[in-house]
Formats: sequence, structure tokens, C-alpha cells
Amino acid sequence: MQIAMIGLGRMGMNMTRRLLKDGHDVVVWNRSADKVQQIVAEGARGAEHLEDLNHMLAPRRTVWCMLPAGDVTRQTLKTLGGILSPDDLVVEGGNSYWRDDAANAALLAEKGIGYVDAGVSGGIWGLEIGYCTMVGGAQEHVALLTPALDSLAPEQGWKHVGPVGSGHFVKMVHNGIEYALMEAYGEGFDLMRNGPFESLDLQGIAALWNRGSVVRSWLLELLDSALSKNPDLSGLKGYVEDSGEGRWTVLETVHHGVAAPVLAQALYQRFASRQDNAFSNRVLAALRNEFGGHAVKKD
Amino acid sequence: MQIAMIGLGRMGMNMTRRLLKDGHDVVVWNRSADKVQQIVAEGARGAEHLEDLNHMLAPRRTVWCMLPAGDVTRQTLKTLGGILSPDDLVVEGGNSYWRDDAANAALLAEKGIGYVDAGVSGGIWGLEIGYCTMVGGAQEHVALLTPALDSLAPEQGWKHVGPVGSGHFVKMVHNGIEYALMEAYGEGFDLMRNGPFESLDLQGIAALWNRGSVVRSWLLELLDSALSKNPDLSGLKGYVEDSGEGRWTVLETVHHGVAAPVLAQALYQRFASRQDNAFSNRVLAALRNEFGGHAVKKD
Repeated sequence: MQIAMIGLGRMGMNMTRRLLKDGHDVVVWNRSADKVQQIVAEGARGAEHLEDLNHMLAPRRTVWCMLPAGDVTRQTLKTLGGILSPDDLVVEGGNSYWRDDAANAALLAEKGIGYVDAGVSGGIWGLEIGYCTMVGGAQEHVALLTPALDSLAPEQGWKHVGPVGSGHFVKMVHNGIEYALMEAYGEGFDLMRNGPFESLDLQGIAALWNRGSVVRSWLLELLDSALSKNPDLSGLKGYVEDSGEGRWTVLETVHHGVAAPVLAQALYQRFASRQDNAFSNRVLAALRNEFGGHAVKKD
Repeated sequence: MQIAMIGLGRMGMNMTRRLLKDGHDVVVWNRSADKVQQIVAEGARGAEHLEDLNHMLAPRRTVWCMLPAGDVTRQTLKTLGGILSPDDLVVEGGNSYWRDDAANAALLAEKGIGYVDAGVSGGIWGLEIGYCTMVGGAQEHVALLTPALDSLAPEQGWKHVGPVGSGHFVKMVHNGIEYALMEAYGEGFDLMRNGPFESLDLQGIAALWNRGSVVRSWLLELLDSALSKNPDLSGLKGYVEDSGEGRWTVLETVHHGVAAPVLAQALYQRFASRQDNAFSNRVLAALRNEFGGHAVKKD
């Protein structure tokens, strides 16, 4: 099919490659032109300005946005609303907050433009394996998009999960779970490293557990890979960023009164990983000194 | 090789089948004779009494115990100490506490009998896939055992992880991690079921996530399977037992001062799942009534 890809970051670039590989006609736009040149050399058609999408795509245009979530995405969707025509379709495939999707869809609906939200998982492995994709929107819009989704995802690797917003919602929960899975492995391997048996072969154990054990998983395969390259993970600071979905997941559990202590704790552990000399710990040290005269360490 | 299997529960029975399939000469003993008859019909040799192992196995005997952890295992190991001869080898393959292994090994060492601990994962799927096995003990003992381990485990699916006790220790951490992985999926799917989008296809989402997403895992495949059979998990009480390893994992994190809040929380969630009208919650309800006059519900 004919489709435009807006944003050639790590995800958008490789997604374009998967589309090209299957023979789709892909028009690309990116803030910096070097990325455009790179993928034009691989068969895409490059748009210099977003406005060019209007004449470079035939009506009933489909435009896939793969931009940083938040203001950049919101602004671009607004701009597209002024460029595209009724019956065109915009897909928001970035990591948007699912609560923004309804407003985005309404904005474009004013112009008669359709809106689909797509939560995309797969990271840097997606090019090879395909992108597991969770799609929210109207049936007729998802139907238009199906040839592209079939190319982007692994076999049976995309699903129309519900109305607008549900794709990002399901992807959000996916990431909330991911945080907790990662934390579980992290804590377990920490105990093996700092427990009663010295110099356990952690990489060997990760590899072993992937051979028929109950905890085998893709994340554990990635841990095996990381430990193979660096058995002590030396030179690496345990400073763990979060990209929003984990926070939104916990907010949502609070909105809906769903007890999710492990998901919340995994998120808090990421916050703690970034706190240098946390104030909470200083409070505790100060109180121990106040009531018991316990020694404190100076920073 | 020639080997005895003591205990024909779900694990011991299927492990015997894997050994028989590879042509090993397996002598079996079980508390109730019907299980013995069953596997004798499949090619094992049945021992009526534990004492029979003495003449049914040639010296440098290898006896694999696959019994309920705790007293039963401890008593049987003691009994075997009186039956077996120097240079024989006992493998404790049950879910023993790793801290018991040293005492078990010492007891048998008095008689010159070797001891290996094996943590075995794989559950009811082990017969087909093989049992991922973590082995602790002396190199010479593990070497004796290698032909059996090769048959029991998937390819590259067993590992000599360290000295006596380390097999059960690594298996313990494995289970501690497993609790938290399960809890993470549980909480995430709870949020999808009770969140803003009605009637999400949870089975379809589990299946989808196994197709290239970051959270794909064997546990998620099992959840897909469970939801396929029963999309609402109706008729099932969310009463979750624990078999010890999760508790021991958390004890160990405390002994070694390793922060593992997610592993601990996953364990506590299992405890909470079994509490009917928890006293802690009654305390909270009573206090809210005391200070704010908030209504309480009668049990």
C-alpha cells in the first residue's frame, strides 16, 4: 500500500525498512534531512516538507507518525490536520499517553480525518523479528491499514484490540508489566551475586534457565546476552530511566482501584535508581541519630 | 547408566520415563506400590523395600530422591545412609531447602556416601521438554551422574552451578523470580480487565504479546493457554499456595541485605490471597471508624 512515515528515529527508520522490504510505496519525512537521504537510498520517497505529503500521496492518504510522545507528536498531528483531506487516515504509533488519543482523534475528526493509535513493541529487534503492534480505532480504519500492519508485525503479531486509545492503553500495560519482569530478574540475580555462594556463573545460569525452566523469557535471553559480553556488568551505572508508560500504568491502577503493588514497586525502584543520596534516606539517618545517637555518615 | 528413583510423584514418575526412554536401567521405589507397578509395566525394575536397592543396583550405586521436601526426604536420606555403601551416591532432587543440603551431605559423608543436590524445574511439561536442572556437588559426583542428567534435561539444560547446596539455592532464586513474574502478569491483566476499556480480549492479548513483544515468555504462553480454556478464569478461586522457595528467597535477601522489594511483595500477595477478612484490614477499618466515624461493614 501507499503510506507515509513521519519520524525516522530508531523505530520509524526500521519500520520503514520492513515496509519497503514488502514492496510498499513509502513516503518519508523527518526533521533532519540526513535520515531522509539515508532511507531514500533504500527505496523510500523523501518529502522535504510535511505539506508535500498532500501531492506525494494519492487521496485516502495514510500517514504513520512515529515521533517522540508529547508536544512534538501533538504539534505534528495538528499540522497534519491542516494538510490532509477528509477520509485520509493518521496513525499515531509513538508512545503517546492513551488518554491523549481521544483528543487527537477529535481534532482530526473535525476535518474528517480518521485516527488510529498503535502501540508498538519490539525495540531494536523489531527490524528482524517484526513489531508486535496493538491497534485501537474504528474497524474501517484498521482495515485500510492492514497491509502495512501485516508487513510491520511478525505473523499474527498485531491485533485490533478496541476503540481509539485502546492500542496505547494495552501497550502501556505491556510496559508496566515489563518494568516488573525486569525488576524481578534484577533482584534475583542480585541475590545470586551477593548471596552465600561465591562466583556463581550468572551468565551460565541465565542461559540454563532459558532451556526448559519456568522463568524462560525473551528478557532472560537478553540478560544472557548482556552477561555474555560483560559478566559483572562492570562500567555500567545502575541508573534506570523510564519513558512514561510505567508511570501511566500505576496512575491507572490508582484511578481504577486495582491493587498492583509489584508494578508500582518496580516503577519506584527506577526512581530510586536515579536518586543520589535520597532525601528519604537522609531523613532516616537523621532520625536514627536523633533518637538513638546512631552515627551518621557525612556526604 | 544404572540409577534408582525414589518417589514416583508427578515429577519422579515422568523423570523415570525420560530415563527409560534413553535406555537407562532404572530401579524404582515408592511408598505406594501401585505407582511402582505402573512404571514397571513401562520398563523399570521395581523395588519392594528400600533395602532391596542394595542388591538390585551394582556398587557405586546412584540413588535419586524425588520426595516431598522436609521430614520425608530427611528420614529417607537417613535410611539410605544405613543401606548404601561407601562410594555410592545420593542425589536429592526434591525441593529441599538449600540450607539443609550441607547437613544431609555430612550425614551421608560419615558413611562415605556422596551427595549431590539438584534443583529441578519444568513441572508437568518436563516429560516432553525435559527438566531444567541446577546441580550442586563435587565434580567427581556430578561426573558420575552426567548420563542421567543428559537424559533428564533438554539440550544444554542442566548445569553444575557450584558446591553442595548451590543447586537448590539457584533453584530457590529461580522460584523467587517466578513468583514475581507471575504477579506482574497477574496485576497487568487485572488492570486490563478492570480498566477503562470494556471487554478487552485478554486471551488474544496474551497470544499477541507472545509474538515479538518484549514481555513474551513461557509463563505468558501458559496464561494464553489458561485464558483460551476459560477467558474469565471463572469458577477459579484466587487462592495461591506457595511451596517454600519464595519464602526462603526472601529470608535470604534479608540475611544478605539485598533489597528485593518485588520478590518480597510477590510472596506477600500470595499470603494475602489466602487471608479471608485479613486482620490487618480489620485494624484499618476499625481505626477509620475510630478517628473519622467512617462506616464499617459487618462480617
